[in-house]
Amino acid sequence: MKLLEDRIKKDGQVLGAEVLKVDNFLNHQIDPDLMTALGQEFYQQFADAKITKILTVESSGIAPALATGMAFHVPVVFARKHKSLTLKDDLYTAEVYSFTKKTSNQIAIAQKFLQADDTVLIIDDFLANGQAVEGLIDIIGQANATLAGVGIVIEKSFQKGRKLLDERQIKTVSLARIKAFVDGQIEFEEED
Amino acid sequence: MKLLEDRIKKDGQVLGAEVLKVDNFLNHQIDPDLMTALGQEFYQQFADAKITKILTVESSGIAPALATGMAFHVPVVFARKHKSLTLKDDLYTAEVYSFTKKTSNQIAIAQKFLQADDTVLIIDDFLANGQAVEGLIDIIGQANATLAGVGIVIEKSFQKGRKLLDERQIKTVSLARIKAFVDGQIEFEEED
Repeated sequence: MKLLEDRIKKDGQVLGAEVLKVDNFLNHQIDPDLMTALGQEFYQQFADAKITKILTVESSGIAPALATGMAFHVPVVFARKHKSLTLKDDLYTAEVYSFTKKTSNQIAIAQKFLQADDTVLIIDDFLANGQAVEGLIDIIGQANATLAGVGIVIEKSFQKGRKLLDERQIKTVSLARIKAFVDGQIEFEEED
Repeated sequence: MKLLEDRIKKDGQVLGAEVLKVDNFLNHQIDPDLMTALGQEFYQQFADAKITKILTVESSGIAPALATGMAFHVPVVFARKHKSLTLKDDLYTAEVYSFTKKTSNQIAIAQKFLQADDTVLIIDDFLANGQAVEGLIDIIGQANATLAGVGIVIEKSFQKGRKLLDERQIKTVSLARIKAFVDGQIEFEEED
């Protein structure tokens, strides 16, 4: 998606060989008009999939997921990473390992918000090693719901997440696909 | 706001004398169309204030804040409660005490996202004792930015947050104002 690639080139900061900082428009400060555009693009890509629910993880997934939910007019559910006073009983949970933080986190959603007749689109801000998405897919399986696909804002194609999803034949749409960071510059994959 | 009050009556769960659970449309599962309506209402209420930035706290504030940012077409910044690998330097921070959890949390935003020439609208999901909003106001002060006002989705008027803001003559717009929970029923304040 050219709009997004241009924005990443303009505002993204490459830190080392693997980290891209996009806190200017996605992760900390959010550009609402860009989110609307991303949500509409995900809608175009999954319009025929009869999506009934958008699923993401707090916190950075919420903005693109909400914009996508606005385009589909379906509810958005965000998995919580941190224990909540009012989120206690009847949970689906999954363990999510973070390669960057080298710790494992539990993510959780209330069972009542995911049903066997749901067709779910997962939305997340980044796809790197794919652990968060795998955790969400695990939860969708526990609920016997249907996974329609995965929508990612920024994919780091050189890490293993995309490969894992392709091997499982899951439809994955990433709006920007980064092939490599070379000397602090961003190389995008060619569009299909 | 009648649309919101009706939704609270329909889907809100009263737990004891002080807690309202609205995880069906605001805190865990989010209704995107309702968020759009809330954002437009905040826009109506602050349309003349020359807002340049929306400020909130992760995670539950992000959805109403983003919808409000969409209505104003201005950036949304969410303060982080948890330390982030890429959020380290040049921060404004404030301590936020949680009466429910009885712990103190630090919230932080990168200094570069709040400037002295910003006019800021704070948006949050709940106003109870007002500690999160006070923390955000503190941060706005550190940046020498201008506070235009506070927009709250659900105010529990029987707790002290609203009184604190009124005493400081801060314009506060709460779209639903709850006077009391009586026998598990919700009593709203009369509209002005």
